Amino acid sequence: MSEFELIAHLTKDFPSFCKEVVVGVGDDCAVLNWNEQYYLLITTDMLVEGIHFDPIYTPLQHLGWKSVVVNLSDIYAMNGRPLAITVSIAFSNRYNEEMLSLLYRGIRAACKNYRVDLIGGDTTTALKGLSISVTAIGIVEKERLTLRKGAKPNDLICVSGDLGAAYAGLQILEREKAVFLQNPEMQPDLASYEYVVGRQLKPSARRDIMEYFLLNDIVPSAMIDISDGLANEIHHICKQSQCGAVIDLNRLPIDHETILVAERFEVPYTTYALYGGEDYELLFTLHPRYYDIIKTDKDFIHVIGYITDEPQQVYIKDLNGNKVELQPMGWDHLKR
Amino acid sequence: MSEFELIAHLTKDFPSFCKEVVVGVGDDCAVLNWNEQYYLLITTDMLVEGIHFDPIYTPLQHLGWKSVVVNLSDIYAMNGRPLAITVSIAFSNRYNEEMLSLLYRGIRAACKNYRVDLIGGDTTTALKGLSISVTAIGIVEKERLTLRKGAKPNDLICVSGDLGAAYAGLQILEREKAVFLQNPEMQPDLASYEYVVGRQLKPSARRDIMEYFLLNDIVPSAMIDISDGLANEIHHICKQSQCGAVIDLNRLPIDHETILVAERFEVPYTTYALYGGEDYELLFTLHPRYYDIIKTDKDFIHVIGYITDEPQQVYIKDLNGNKVELQPMGWDHLKR
Repeated sequence: MSEFELIAHLTKDFPSFCKEVVVGVGDDCAVLNWNEQYYLLITTDMLVEGIHFDPIYTPLQHLGWKSVVVNLSDIYAMNGRPLAITVSIAFSNRYNEEMLSLLYRGIRAACKNYRVDLIGGDTTTALKGLSISVTAIGIVEKERLTLRKGAKPNDLICVSGDLGAAYAGLQILEREKAVFLQNPEMQPDLASYEYVVGRQLKPSARRDIMEYFLLNDIVPSAMIDISDGLANEIHHICKQSQCGAVIDLNRLPIDHETILVAERFEVPYTTYALYGGEDYELLFTLHPRYYDIIKTDKDFIHVIGYITDEPQQVYIKDLNGNKVELQPMGWDHLKR
Repeated sequence: MSEFELIAHLTKDFPSFCKEVVVGVGDDCAVLNWNEQYYLLITTDMLVEGIHFDPIYTPLQHLGWKSVVVNLSDIYAMNGRPLAITVSIAFSNRYNEEMLSLLYRGIRAACKNYRVDLIGGDTTTALKGLSISVTAIGIVEKERLTLRKGAKPNDLICVSGDLGAAYAGLQILEREKAVFLQNPEMQPDLASYEYVVGRQLKPSARRDIMEYFLLNDIVPSAMIDISDGLANEIHHICKQSQCGAVIDLNRLPIDHETILVAERFEVPYTTYALYGGEDYELLFTLHPRYYDIIKTDKDFIHVIGYITDEPQQVYIKDLNGNKVELQPMGWDHLKR
């Protein structure tokens, strides 16, 4: 059972009382009525030692930063603006006060950068490891709310930034860890892979894209953030929008460092771009009328395909022009 | 460094951007402007295996229930009404789908009973154990918001329900566990301690008290929920309200089962009532003018003392009428 199936199974048959709830489980954020003008957005994510991060190569400051950013990314994916976060941590006695201070320095840096307030949380000991649970709240103008559902046939499929770099960074870090464990005297060779390693350890959330939409009076028809890889996320949009998609492999934005890593590991670089997760870029669909606006902003918005009317049929046009089905798989499948 | 000091240390120097934030870290909930009529309340709590619960004697359904209730209790402690929760869990491979279903059955039962919606969450694997992180949101009419600060000299100090039972229940469960580990054939003897064991495993949040205040047009001057024991909580109120308190040991409401357990363990039962945590009763202060209303409701509201003007001087009047200082200690101190 996948994580998605498990959540669906566990949360089925829950009663509904609160008339303020507009969207519950199943999008990047829950949506509640806030006031006449705004919806309230809520999202939560947990990072667990040994699952989401390896303490051997994860600086605690970066980890603090990332634990905030992955939640803010979900707020931006609703076309919203984050306001505040709560942070709960559970830590074993291996974590002393100085280490926790480093973690919170990263949390504070993210709060400062994204202009959100830390408004609460919980700290507790744990028998083992470190877990960080962050909840973010934000707001969105009612007419700008963007859900996963809403994509329409012929809409353009777009992504911000580039894809696969965070996964490439993870591969490098894992390799360096293996080298280090064999020979602890050796210094890690990360300098040539600064970009991809940075994408893994200290990702950004795309506030600029949300602001770009606002400035250019664009409301995407559907949006999601790419935490589990493009292949998974496009399937989420197609499932909830009752549509299909064609993605052009030639058009996937991929950094040259990601390509270098893929070559080094002898994996097609498109595999990283399609299935590698944790990029925290935004995947969104736009009515074709917006094309004239975005075509001048090719540096950070990339049209990678289009929406079709075939429910949940997702195809990629490969480098030779052949159309093949794209399965919803990610990161965790790649690792096996 | 205590948990309170650690939180204060880690969260100091955080910037503040969001003008909607009325109260941040430091009360039972954070408070944000919601609309003309209401504030939004947010609170979060994490339960960690081996720290907050022992899987040997904690039924998963009860654990799910409790993980919700401890958060709703914080909403009631602001005189508010919970609307919705998010639930994140991290679980090791010792937890199968059936066990997680039991956990969520308890979560669902609490949602149903307290009429709140489950609106989101996160599920992830963990290398070890089970952690549950719940965030609750609620609302409160602006003129009914009750903070920890606000207690005034001569206010009555009141508690709902009875005190010390949850800690007494824990003692019984720990003893039965020790017996069980020595002799796994033996059936646990919990029947004579049903009340206190229930208070530990499946606590209630005092929605009825919030509703009673509403019905009787009462707004407490200060309120907090008793999760870390009366001694700690009264100090929180006194610190934030810049006042002192005198608590009359004779007036502490204590169930006869709690007294039986205390006698069995040869501990003064007032120790359980003062320092034992997890009762999730409400501790609140009332202007004396309300006395005529509450005096007829002695079954569930107990006047246990009064507020003084001596900053942070908290005394108990013991059973012989002597006044002695009450230190802010709890549960975790008792266990040592």
